[in-house]
Amino acid sequence: MDKILELDRANLTMLVQAGRYYAAGGGCSFDRWTVLSARPGSMKISTIGGNVAENSGGLRGLKYGVTRNYVMGMEVVLPGGEVLWTGNKCVKDVAGYSLKDLFIGSEGTLGVITKGSAATDPKPQAKKTMVAKFREMDRAAEAVSAIIAAQIIPCTLEFLDRMTIHCVEAYAKIGLPLDCEALLLMETDGHPAAVAEEAAQMEKICRDKGCLELRVAKDDAEAAKLASARRAAFSALARVSPTTILEDATVPRSELAKMVRFVEAVAKKYNLRIGTFGHMGDGNLHPTFLTDERNKEEMHRVEEAFKEIFDEAIRLGGTITGEHGVGLAKKSFLPKFAGDAQMRVMRELRRTLDPRAILNPGKCSIDGSASKCRLRQQSERRRKIS
Amino acid sequence: MDKILELDRANLTMLVQAGRYYAAGGGCSFDRWTVLSARPGSMKISTIGGNVAENSGGLRGLKYGVTRNYVMGMEVVLPGGEVLWTGNKCVKDVAGYSLKDLFIGSEGTLGVITKGSAATDPKPQAKKTMVAKFREMDRAAEAVSAIIAAQIIPCTLEFLDRMTIHCVEAYAKIGLPLDCEALLLMETDGHPAAVAEEAAQMEKICRDKGCLELRVAKDDAEAAKLASARRAAFSALARVSPTTILEDATVPRSELAKMVRFVEAVAKKYNLRIGTFGHMGDGNLHPTFLTDERNKEEMHRVEEAFKEIFDEAIRLGGTITGEHGVGLAKKSFLPKFAGDAQMRVMRELRRTLDPRAILNPGKCSIDGSASKCRLRQQSERRRKIS
Repeated sequence: MDKILELDRANLTMLVQAGRYYAAGGGCSFDRWTVLSARPGSMKISTIGGNVAENSGGLRGLKYGVTRNYVMGMEVVLPGGEVLWTGNKCVKDVAGYSLKDLFIGSEGTLGVITKGSAATDPKPQAKKTMVAKFREMDRAAEAVSAIIAAQIIPCTLEFLDRMTIHCVEAYAKIGLPLDCEALLLMETDGHPAAVAEEAAQMEKICRDKGCLELRVAKDDAEAAKLASARRAAFSALARVSPTTILEDATVPRSELAKMVRFVEAVAKKYNLRIGTFGHMGDGNLHPTFLTDERNKEEMHRVEEAFKEIFDEAIRLGGTITGEHGVGLAKKSFLPKFAGDAQMRVMRELRRTLDPRAILNPGKCSIDGSASKCRLRQQSERRRKIS
Repeated sequence: MDKILELDRANLTMLVQAGRYYAAGGGCSFDRWTVLSARPGSMKISTIGGNVAENSGGLRGLKYGVTRNYVMGMEVVLPGGEVLWTGNKCVKDVAGYSLKDLFIGSEGTLGVITKGSAATDPKPQAKKTMVAKFREMDRAAEAVSAIIAAQIIPCTLEFLDRMTIHCVEAYAKIGLPLDCEALLLMETDGHPAAVAEEAAQMEKICRDKGCLELRVAKDDAEAAKLASARRAAFSALARVSPTTILEDATVPRSELAKMVRFVEAVAKKYNLRIGTFGHMGDGNLHPTFLTDERNKEEMHRVEEAFKEIFDEAIRLGGTITGEHGVGLAKKSFLPKFAGDAQMRVMRELRRTLDPRAILNPGKCSIDGSASKCRLRQQSERRRKIS
């Protein structure tokens, strides 16, 4: 189930079977068009069906949104075996409820997605990549706010905290500075004139906000090198300890620096190692716990730290998961986030579409079943890639 | 219920009560940001609650999408009186089912939307407006395809057919050419350099495709004058006959010229007057019947013509309604469009959320009740504005 079923060059849509990897055959693009520009970070190991069922995000959320923004239609097999098609190639369609949007992000609990059709964007003509180094996370966050206030919407605004920078440098030896609290990887893309102007403005804003150093990539090769620090973040953190638990608590952009500081304080309180990196433009951060699941006492502290982090994300108006989903690992946190009314409606929807709860049983806490097995939770966590 | 409840300048969202008109207080924008850039065509007479419940489209669908793309959160009162909040200020949020997306476009049949929060876009720095005149609709459609194939995504690509041009000229006397089959109103916006280049390319493409005449607006005043032909289309058609029935059959962009020709053939077959205008970039067209609801015999022909037009839209992979909704007028066409599986799921969702069918009863054919009253259907149609 990994075939491209249709490339529609007139309407610029691509229809694929759900088992196809996003990055198969050169990255889900044709001619000079990018399919599903949100482009999940896990594109090499994630399937289109998974991207749709999860409503995958990625490194480009601020400018290019998420998977939902690109899905035009899908085939879904319902629990009783009935095959349903929802959506079409029309940008506008308001005939009846948008079932497509109900299935997107439902984590396989309402139906099994077997085909998906996605819209495309023109590949940008130009791109500029730069990395800025800040002594303090708050200065980096201020720079991001000032960039957006200047009406620049960069395609990438990624950050690495001190722990992540040190791990990446130890792992990849790419010459990262070790004397700073935050690295900011920024990319702007589009028309060459706009990109040149925006890059110059972004550079000026970062300098005005007191960045210690800023490097602008001269060409694609240097851009790839600068971006490699961010791409290596998870692998670099993962090699430090036997167990790596990657989370994706997410807050409104205005609260990001506050949330990063809170994660640091929690790490200190529970005597844990947490590296944090993520998507500064859209408030989606990845606190990554470096731990060992065989150490029961430490794992208990990890669980306690999690609870505090998710509680704080909710308190700041955020969410317990920006792009990775609820699955098993976060099902106990969903009721607090969603509240009684939403939980009741979600459970009723699940019961309506899958009355015997045979689809992805036990996930999302929506069928009310208890957590199955801690080990399964952990292994699920380890597999997650930002 | 028409207050602005929050303007969040850090996260660039606006929270309003549902009864607020979209265009109230200068058009739903703040500072240099546009709220809900999809911008419904009916913005002067439509409320934000209505826009969300309908998933309103507009003249800018190809580039700026529809209402769904901008809604961040909403308050909904459920049929039992329970108040539910769904969504937040995070670009990414995959915690549980996206109830927000189920309520968007549900036409008030699942809950009453009382507050809505929307995202914003930077106001474009530059805009260029032009009008091209084509002897044949197919040439206009080819020009549109060629523009998009050149990776230009204009914010506006509107067309008027011969009947509409004649009515607009008789009504507004703005000097429109009467010897052509299609007028194409095009606008591109964004960075000044990109806009200048794109406008030049669009002009060249139109001339290559044999356009008879092309006017580029020199300034905002001339742009407004050129755009006025499209804005006047519905009013101009409406004054010709006692009853105006505006439809919004929608097809994939590649099928638009075929669909316009089909509408013309149907008009001839049933001896009816139909003016067609609409959104060429997103395949959303507005065949507008100029008729008299007191003439029972003619109204019968109108109904027959409708059936053929909707059948053809479905056959071409389109939808029975791109942006106006099902309501009463199109409920009998929904089952054929949606198919048995979707209809069953929609009815079950309705029964689950509103078991006594007290919300907007009889709409969308989703509660299975029969059409109420032909007169109500007609008056609903008359009120619709593209």
